[in-house]
Amino acid sequence: SKLKSASAKTSFSDRGMTLEQELNQSNAYYLNHDVAVIHKKPTPIQIVNVDYPKRSAAVIKEAYFKQASTTDYNGVYRGNYIDFDAKETQNATSFPLHNFHEHQVEHMRQCIKHGGICFAIIKFVKLDQIFLFKATDLFSYWDNMDATKGRKSIPLADIQKNGILIQYHIQPLIPYLEAVDQLIDLRR
Amino acid sequence: SKLKSASAKTSFSDRGMTLEQELNQSNAYYLNHDVAVIHKKPTPIQIVNVDYPKRSAAVIKEAYFKQASTTDYNGVYRGNYIDFDAKETQNATSFPLHNFHEHQVEHMRQCIKHGGICFAIIKFVKLDQIFLFKATDLFSYWDNMDATKGRKSIPLADIQKNGILIQYHIQPLIPYLEAVDQLIDLRR
Ligand SMILES: [Mg+2]
Ligand SMILES: [Mg+2]
Repeated sequence: SKLKSASAKTSFSDRGMTLEQELNQSNAYYLNHDVAVIHKKPTPIQIVNVDYPKRSAAVIKEAYFKQASTTDYNGVYRGNYIDFDAKETQNATSFPLHNFHEHQVEHMRQCIKHGGICFAIIKFVKLDQIFLFKATDLFSYWDNMDATKGRKSIPLADIQKNGILIQYHIQPLIPYLEAVDQLIDLRR
Repeated sequence: SKLKSASAKTSFSDRGMTLEQELNQSNAYYLNHDVAVIHKKPTPIQIVNVDYPKRSAAVIKEAYFKQASTTDYNGVYRGNYIDFDAKETQNATSFPLHNFHEHQVEHMRQCIKHGGICFAIIKFVKLDQIFLFKATDLFSYWDNMDATKGRKSIPLADIQKNGILIQYHIQPLIPYLEAVDQLIDLRR
Protein backbone atom coordinates (compact mmCIF):
# COMPACT_ATOMS: atom_id res chain seq x y z
CA SER A 1 0.00 0.00 0.00
CA LYS A 2 2.94 2.35 0.53
CA LEU A 3 4.17 1.42 -2.92
CA LYS A 4 0.77 1.90 -4.44
CA SER A 5 0.30 5.40 -3.12
CA ALA A 6 3.85 6.29 -4.14
CA SER A 7 3.17 5.20 -7.67
CA ALA A 8 -0.12 7.04 -7.82
CA LYS A 9 1.75 10.09 -6.64
CA THR A 10 4.30 9.79 -9.39
CA SER A 11 1.86 9.33 -12.20
CA PHE A 12 -0.73 11.93 -11.28
CA SER A 13 0.22 14.72 -8.98
CA ASP A 14 4.01 15.11 -9.00
CA ARG A 15 4.33 17.17 -12.11
CA GLY A 16 5.47 20.34 -10.47
CA MET A 17 2.04 21.85 -10.96
CA THR A 18 0.52 24.10 -8.38
CA LEU A 19 -2.94 23.26 -7.05
CA GLU A 20 -4.25 26.13 -9.16
CA GLN A 21 -2.75 24.70 -12.32
CA GLU A 22 -4.18 21.28 -11.47
CA LEU A 23 -7.63 22.80 -10.94
CA ASN A 24 -7.42 24.86 -14.13
CA GLN A 25 -6.62 21.68 -16.04
CA SER A 26 -9.52 19.89 -14.34
CA ASN A 27 -11.88 22.74 -15.18
CA ALA A 28 -10.76 22.63 -18.82
CA TYR A 29 -11.62 18.92 -18.83
CA TYR A 30 -15.03 19.61 -17.29
CA LEU A 31 -15.70 22.36 -19.83
CA ASN A 32 -14.62 20.29 -22.84
CA HIS A 33 -16.70 17.34 -21.68
CA ASP A 34 -19.80 19.43 -21.06
CA VAL A 35 -19.84 18.75 -17.33
CA ALA A 36 -19.65 22.28 -15.93
CA VAL A 37 -18.52 25.83 -16.73
CA ILE A 38 -16.10 26.90 -14.00
CA HIS A 39 -13.30 29.40 -14.57
CA LYS A 40 -10.56 30.97 -12.53
CA LYS A 41 -11.04 34.72 -12.35
CA PRO A 42 -8.20 36.83 -13.73
CA THR A 43 -5.80 38.31 -11.18
CA PRO A 44 -6.97 41.82 -10.29
CA ILE A 45 -4.47 44.45 -11.37
CA GLN A 46 -4.33 48.18 -10.70
CA ILE A 47 -3.13 49.74 -13.94
CA VAL A 48 -1.24 53.02 -13.54
CA ASN A 49 0.45 53.66 -16.87
CA VAL A 50 -0.24 52.38 -20.39
CA ASP A 51 1.66 53.08 -23.58
CA TYR A 52 -0.22 53.13 -26.88
CA PRO A 53 2.42 52.72 -29.55
CA LYS A 54 1.38 53.33 -33.15
CA ARG A 55 0.50 50.18 -35.07
CA SER A 56 1.01 47.81 -32.17
CA ALA A 57 -0.71 46.57 -29.05
CA ALA A 58 -1.08 48.72 -25.93
CA VAL A 59 1.67 48.04 -23.39
CA ILE A 60 1.02 48.28 -19.67
CA LYS A 61 4.15 49.97 -18.29
CA GLU A 62 3.24 50.25 -14.62
CA ALA A 63 0.72 48.22 -12.68
CA TYR A 64 0.30 46.64 -9.26
CA PHE A 65 -1.31 43.50 -7.91
CA LYS A 66 -4.53 44.21 -6.05
CA GLN A 67 -5.95 42.03 -3.31
CA ALA A 68 -8.84 40.00 -4.68
CA SER A 69 -12.20 40.90 -3.18
CA THR A 70 -13.75 37.53 -3.94
CA THR A 71 -12.64 33.92 -4.33
CA ASP A 72 -10.61 32.45 -7.18
CA TYR A 73 -13.15 30.29 -8.96
CA ASN A 74 -16.82 30.41 -9.83
CA GLY A 75 -19.24 29.03 -12.35
CA VAL A 76 -22.27 26.84 -12.92
CA TYR A 77 -22.76 23.10 -12.38
CA ARG A 78 -26.02 21.13 -12.43
CA GLY A 79 -27.96 24.41 -12.27
CA ASN A 80 -26.07 25.56 -9.18
CA TYR A 81 -23.86 28.57 -8.63
CA ILE A 82 -20.45 27.23 -7.55
CA ASP A 83 -17.88 29.41 -5.77
CA PHE A 84 -14.62 28.34 -4.18
CA ASP A 85 -11.07 29.13 -3.36
CA ALA A 86 -8.01 26.89 -3.71
CA LYS A 87 -5.46 26.84 -0.91
CA GLU A 88 -2.20 24.96 -0.54
CA THR A 89 -0.41 24.52 2.76
CA GLN A 90 3.04 23.17 3.59
CA ASN A 91 1.79 22.49 7.11
CA ALA A 92 1.27 18.77 7.74
CA THR A 93 -0.90 18.84 10.86
CA SER A 94 -3.32 21.74 10.41
CA PHE A 95 -4.53 24.36 7.97
CA PRO A 96 -3.60 27.92 9.03
CA LEU A 97 -6.60 30.23 8.76
CA HIS A 98 -4.46 33.21 7.73
CA ASN A 99 -4.56 31.65 4.26
CA PHE A 100 -7.97 33.25 4.00
CA HIS A 101 -8.71 36.95 3.92
CA GLU A 102 -11.69 38.40 5.73
CA HIS A 103 -13.30 39.59 2.47
CA GLN A 104 -13.04 36.11 0.94
CA VAL A 105 -14.87 34.61 3.89
CA GLU A 106 -17.40 37.45 3.71
CA HIS A 107 -17.89 36.82 -0.01
CA MET A 108 -18.62 33.14 0.63
CA ARG A 109 -21.15 34.04 3.33
CA GLN A 110 -22.94 36.33 0.88
CA CYS A 111 -22.98 33.71 -1.88
CA ILE A 112 -24.42 31.09 0.45
CA LYS A 113 -27.12 33.52 1.54
CA HIS A 114 -28.27 33.71 -2.10
CA GLY A 115 -28.23 29.96 -2.69
CA GLY A 116 -24.69 29.34 -3.95
CA ILE A 117 -22.54 26.33 -3.13
CA CYS A 118 -19.28 27.48 -1.54
CA PHE A 119 -16.23 25.64 -0.32
CA ALA A 120 -12.46 25.56 -0.18
CA ILE A 121 -10.24 23.07 -1.97
CA ILE A 122 -7.39 22.54 0.48
CA LYS A 123 -4.20 20.72 -0.46
CA PHE A 124 -1.77 19.47 2.15
CA VAL A 125 1.26 19.47 -0.12
CA LYS A 126 3.51 17.33 2.10
CA LEU A 127 0.81 14.69 2.56
CA ASP A 128 -0.33 14.97 -1.07
CA GLN A 129 -3.91 15.04 0.20
CA ILE A 130 -6.68 17.23 -1.20
CA PHE A 131 -9.98 17.95 0.49
CA LEU A 132 -13.18 19.79 -0.26
CA PHE A 133 -14.07 21.67 2.91
CA LYS A 134 -17.51 23.29 3.08
CA ALA A 135 -17.61 27.06 3.60
CA THR A 136 -20.14 26.63 6.40
CA ASP A 137 -17.63 24.46 8.30
CA LEU A 138 -14.91 27.01 7.64
CA PHE A 139 -17.10 29.78 9.10
CA SER A 140 -17.28 28.11 12.50
CA TYR A 141 -13.48 28.02 12.82
CA TRP A 142 -13.21 31.55 11.45
CA ASP A 143 -15.78 32.99 13.84
CA ASN A 144 -14.30 31.15 16.79
CA MET A 145 -10.89 32.59 15.98
CA ASP A 146 -12.32 36.10 15.92
CA ALA A 147 -14.58 35.83 18.93
CA THR A 148 -12.46 34.09 21.50
CA LYS A 149 -8.91 34.51 20.24
CA GLY A 150 -9.23 30.80 19.67
CA ARG A 151 -6.88 28.63 17.63
CA LYS A 152 -5.77 30.09 14.32
CA SER A 153 -5.85 26.88 12.33
CA ILE A 154 -8.09 23.94 11.47
CA PRO A 155 -6.62 20.63 12.68
CA LEU A 156 -5.95 18.13 9.88
CA ALA A 157 -8.02 15.57 11.79
CA ASP A 158 -11.07 17.87 11.60
CA ILE A 159 -10.59 18.33 7.87
CA GLN A 160 -10.21 14.59 7.40
CA LYS A 161 -13.38 14.02 9.41
CA ASN A 162 -15.65 16.79 8.05
CA GLY A 163 -14.14 17.42 4.62
CA ILE A 164 -14.40 15.21 1.56
CA LEU A 165 -11.16 13.57 0.42
CA ILE A 166 -10.54 13.98 -3.31
CA GLN A 167 -8.26 11.37 -4.87
CA TYR A 168 -6.11 12.31 -7.84
CA HIS A 169 -7.45 10.84 -11.02
CA ILE A 170 -6.37 11.06 -14.66
CA GLN A 171 -9.23 12.86 -16.36
CA PRO A 172 -9.95 15.11 -14.68
CA LEU A 173 -6.84 15.29 -12.54
CA ILE A 174 -8.82 16.53 -9.51
CA PRO A 175 -12.38 15.20 -9.79
CA TYR A 176 -13.72 17.67 -7.24
CA LEU A 177 -17.20 17.85 -8.77
CA GLU A 178 -17.85 14.35 -7.43
CA ALA A 179 -17.48 15.86 -3.98
CA VAL A 180 -19.73 18.75 -5.02
CA ASP A 181 -22.34 16.17 -6.03
CA GLN A 182 -22.48 15.13 -2.38
CA LEU A 183 -23.12 18.75 -1.33
CA ILE A 184 -25.86 19.15 -3.94
CA ASP A 185 -27.53 15.90 -2.95
CA LEU A 186 -27.46 16.96 0.72
CA ARG A 187 -29.53 20.03 -0.19
CA ARG A 188 -32.42 18.07 -1.68
CA SER B 1 -43.66 63.69 -21.53
CA LYS B 2 -40.70 64.97 -23.52
CA LEU B 3 -39.82 67.19 -20.59
CA LYS B 4 -40.19 64.35 -18.13
CA SER B 5 -37.84 62.03 -19.91
CA ALA B 6 -35.32 64.83 -20.39
CA SER B 7 -35.29 65.50 -16.68
CA ALA B 8 -34.97 61.82 -15.84
CA LYS B 9 -32.01 61.71 -18.17
CA THR B 10 -30.32 64.58 -16.40
CA SER B 11 -30.77 63.35 -12.90
CA PHE B 12 -29.94 59.68 -13.40
CA SER B 13 -27.90 58.68 -16.37
CA ASP B 14 -26.04 61.74 -17.65
CA ARG B 15 -23.13 61.60 -15.30
CA GLY B 16 -20.49 60.70 -17.80
CA MET B 17 -20.45 57.15 -16.50
CA THR B 18 -19.99 54.26 -18.86
CA LEU B 19 -22.57 51.47 -18.81
CA GLU B 20 -20.00 49.35 -16.99
CA GLN B 21 -19.58 51.95 -14.26
CA GLU B 22 -23.34 52.23 -13.93
CA LEU B 23 -23.66 48.46 -13.61
CA ASN B 24 -20.80 48.25 -11.12
CA GLN B 25 -22.55 50.83 -9.00
CA SER B 26 -25.84 48.93 -9.29
CA ASN B 27 -24.12 45.68 -8.30
CA ALA B 28 -22.58 47.39 -5.27
CA TYR B 29 -26.08 48.46 -4.26
CA TYR B 30 -27.42 44.93 -4.74
CA LEU B 31 -24.54 43.51 -2.69
CA ASN B 32 -24.88 46.01 0.15
CA HIS B 33 -28.63 45.45 0.31
CA ASP B 34 -28.36 41.67 0.32
CA VAL B 35 -30.13 41.27 -3.00
CA ALA B 36 -27.50 39.42 -5.04
CA VAL B 37 -23.76 38.81 -5.34
CA ILE B 38 -22.71 39.82 -8.85
CA HIS B 39 -19.24 41.09 -9.70
CA LYS B 40 -17.40 42.26 -12.77
CA LYS B 41 -14.48 39.99 -13.51
CA PRO B 42 -11.06 41.64 -13.55
CA THR B 43 -9.61 42.48 -16.97
CA PRO B 44 -7.40 39.60 -18.07
CA ILE B 45 -3.76 40.65 -18.38
CA GLN B 46 -0.74 38.82 -19.76
CA ILE B 47 2.11 39.69 -17.44
CA VAL B 48 5.56 39.63 -19.03
CA ASN B 49 7.87 41.38 -16.60
CA VAL B 50 7.62 42.11 -12.86
CA ASP B 51 10.02 44.01 -10.63
CA TYR B 52 10.33 43.01 -6.98
CA PRO B 53 11.92 45.99 -5.26
CA LYS B 54 13.16 45.47 -1.70
CA ARG B 55 10.73 46.61 0.97
CA SER B 56 7.99 47.64 -1.45
CA ALA B 57 5.24 46.19 -3.57
CA ALA B 58 5.91 44.24 -6.75
CA VAL B 59 5.66 46.43 -9.86
CA ILE B 60 4.42 45.04 -13.16
CA LYS B 61 6.73 46.61 -15.76
CA GLU B 62 5.42 44.99 -18.93
CA ALA B 63 2.02 43.46 -19.53
CA TYR B 64 -0.60 43.25 -22.27
CA PHE B 65 -4.35 43.16 -22.42
CA LYS B 66 -5.69 39.70 -23.26
CA GLN B 67 -9.01 39.03 -24.93
CA ALA B 68 -11.51 37.82 -22.34
CA SER B 69 -12.62 34.24 -22.82
CA THR B 70 -15.90 34.70 -20.98
CA THR B 71 -18.40 37.47 -20.29
CA ASP B 72 -17.88 40.47 -18.00
CA TYR B 73 -20.22 39.71 -15.13
CA ASN B 74 -21.35 36.69 -13.16
CA GLY B 75 -22.73 35.80 -9.78
CA VAL B 76 -25.65 34.40 -7.86
CA TYR B 77 -29.22 35.70 -7.48
CA ARG B 78 -32.24 33.90 -6.04
CA GLY B 79 -30.32 30.63 -6.17
CA ASN B 80 -29.53 31.07 -9.86
CA TYR B 81 -26.23 31.37 -11.67
CA ILE B 82 -26.30 34.72 -13.50
CA ASP B 83 -23.95 35.51 -16.40
CA PHE B 84 -24.01 38.48 -18.71
CA ASP B 85 -22.13 40.98 -20.76
CA ALA B 86 -22.66 44.74 -20.98
CA LYS B 87 -22.51 46.39 -24.39
CA GLU B 88 -22.89 50.01 -25.42
CA THR B 89 -23.56 51.12 -28.96
CA GLN B 90 -23.57 54.55 -30.58
CA ASN B 91 -25.77 53.14 -33.31
CA ALA B 92 -29.35 54.39 -33.02
CA THR B 93 -31.20 51.91 -35.23
CA SER B 94 -29.61 48.52 -34.60
CA PHE B 95 -27.10 46.68 -32.43
CA PRO B 96 -24.02 45.54 -34.40
CA LEU B 97 -23.21 41.91 -33.65
CA HIS B 98 -19.45 42.48 -33.93
CA ASN B 99 -19.71 43.83 -30.40
CA PHE B 100 -19.68 40.18 -29.35
CA HIS B 101 -16.80 37.76 -29.76
CA GLU B 102 -17.39 34.17 -30.77
CA HIS B 103 -16.01 32.86 -27.45
CA GLN B 104 -18.37 35.06 -25.44
CA VAL B 105 -21.35 33.66 -27.31
CA GLU B 106 -19.93 30.16 -26.89
CA HIS B 107 -19.48 30.76 -23.15
CA MET B 108 -23.12 31.82 -22.81
CA ARG B 109 -24.26 28.71 -24.68
CA GLN B 110 -22.29 26.53 -22.27
CA CYS B 111 -23.65 28.33 -19.20
CA ILE B 112 -27.23 27.92 -20.39
CA LYS B 113 -26.64 24.22 -21.01
CA HIS B 114 -25.80 23.85 -17.32
CA GLY B 115 -28.76 25.83 -16.06
CA GLY B 116 -27.43 29.38 -15.88
CA ILE B 117 -29.36 32.53 -16.75
CA CYS B 118 -27.54 34.44 -19.49
CA PHE B 119 -28.22 37.69 -21.26
CA ALA B 120 -26.76 40.92 -22.59
CA ILE B 121 -27.39 44.36 -21.16
CA ILE B 122 -27.44 46.58 -24.24
CA LYS B 123 -27.38 50.35 -24.04
CA PHE B 124 -28.26 52.55 -27.00
CA VAL B 125 -26.27 55.55 -25.87
CA LYS B 126 -27.86 58.09 -28.22
CA LEU B 127 -31.36 56.99 -27.27
CA ASP B 128 -30.45 56.58 -23.60
CA GLN B 129 -32.28 53.25 -23.65
CA ILE B 130 -31.12 50.11 -21.90
CA PHE B 131 -32.43 46.61 -22.56
CA LEU B 132 -31.94 43.15 -21.18
CA PHE B 133 -31.74 40.87 -24.20
CA LYS B 134 -31.83 37.10 -23.56
CA ALA B 135 -28.84 35.08 -24.73
CA THR B 136 -31.15 32.59 -26.44
CA ASP B 137 -32.55 35.41 -28.59
CA LEU B 138 -29.03 36.62 -29.33
CA PHE B 139 -28.06 33.12 -30.52
CA SER B 140 -30.63 33.13 -33.29
CA TYR B 141 -29.23 36.36 -34.78
CA TRP B 142 -25.68 35.13 -34.28
CA ASP B 143 -26.28 31.77 -35.95
CA ASN B 144 -28.18 33.36 -38.80
CA MET B 145 -25.25 35.71 -39.43
CA ASP B 146 -22.85 32.79 -39.61
CA ALA B 147 -24.97 30.43 -41.61
CA THR B 148 -26.42 32.58 -44.33
CA LYS B 149 -24.20 35.64 -44.38
CA GLY B 150 -27.29 37.30 -43.00
CA ARG B 151 -27.50 40.74 -41.47
CA LYS B 152 -24.77 41.62 -39.02
CA SER B 153 -26.89 43.50 -36.53
CA ILE B 154 -30.06 43.21 -34.48
CA PRO B 155 -32.65 45.83 -35.43
CA LEU B 156 -33.60 48.15 -32.58
CA ALA B 157 -37.24 47.27 -33.19
CA ASP B 158 -36.51 43.59 -32.48
CA ILE B 159 -34.72 44.48 -29.26
CA GLN B 160 -37.59 46.73 -28.22
CA LYS B 161 -40.03 43.92 -28.96
CA ASN B 162 -38.18 40.91 -27.51
CA GLY B 163 -35.93 42.54 -24.95
CA ILE B 164 -36.93 43.99 -21.60
CA LEU B 165 -36.61 47.76 -21.25
CA ILE B 166 -34.82 48.81 -18.08
CA GLN B 167 -35.60 52.32 -16.85
CA TYR B 168 -32.95 54.26 -14.96
CA HIS B 169 -33.72 54.44 -11.29
CA ILE B 170 -31.93 55.97 -8.31
CA GLN B 171 -31.07 52.99 -6.14
CA PRO B 172 -29.97 50.95 -7.92
CA LEU B 173 -29.20 53.09 -10.93
CA ILE B 174 -29.94 50.22 -13.34
CA PRO B 175 -32.47 47.89 -11.70
CA TYR B 176 -31.74 45.05 -14.10
CA LEU B 177 -32.55 42.30 -11.60
CA GLU B 178 -36.23 43.21 -11.97
CA ALA B 179 -35.89 42.11 -15.59
CA VAL B 180 -34.03 38.98 -14.45
CA ASP B 181 -36.99 38.22 -12.18
CA GLN B 182 -39.09 37.91 -15.32
CA LEU B 183 -36.62 35.40 -16.78
CA ILE B 184 -36.59 33.37 -13.57
CA ASP B 185 -40.38 33.36 -13.33
CA LEU B 186 -40.61 32.20 -16.96
CA ARG B 187 -38.60 29.10 -16.04
CA ARG B 188 -41.01 27.92 -13.35
MG1 LIG C 1 -6.44 30.76 -3.87
MG1 LIG D 1 -18.66 44.22 -22.07
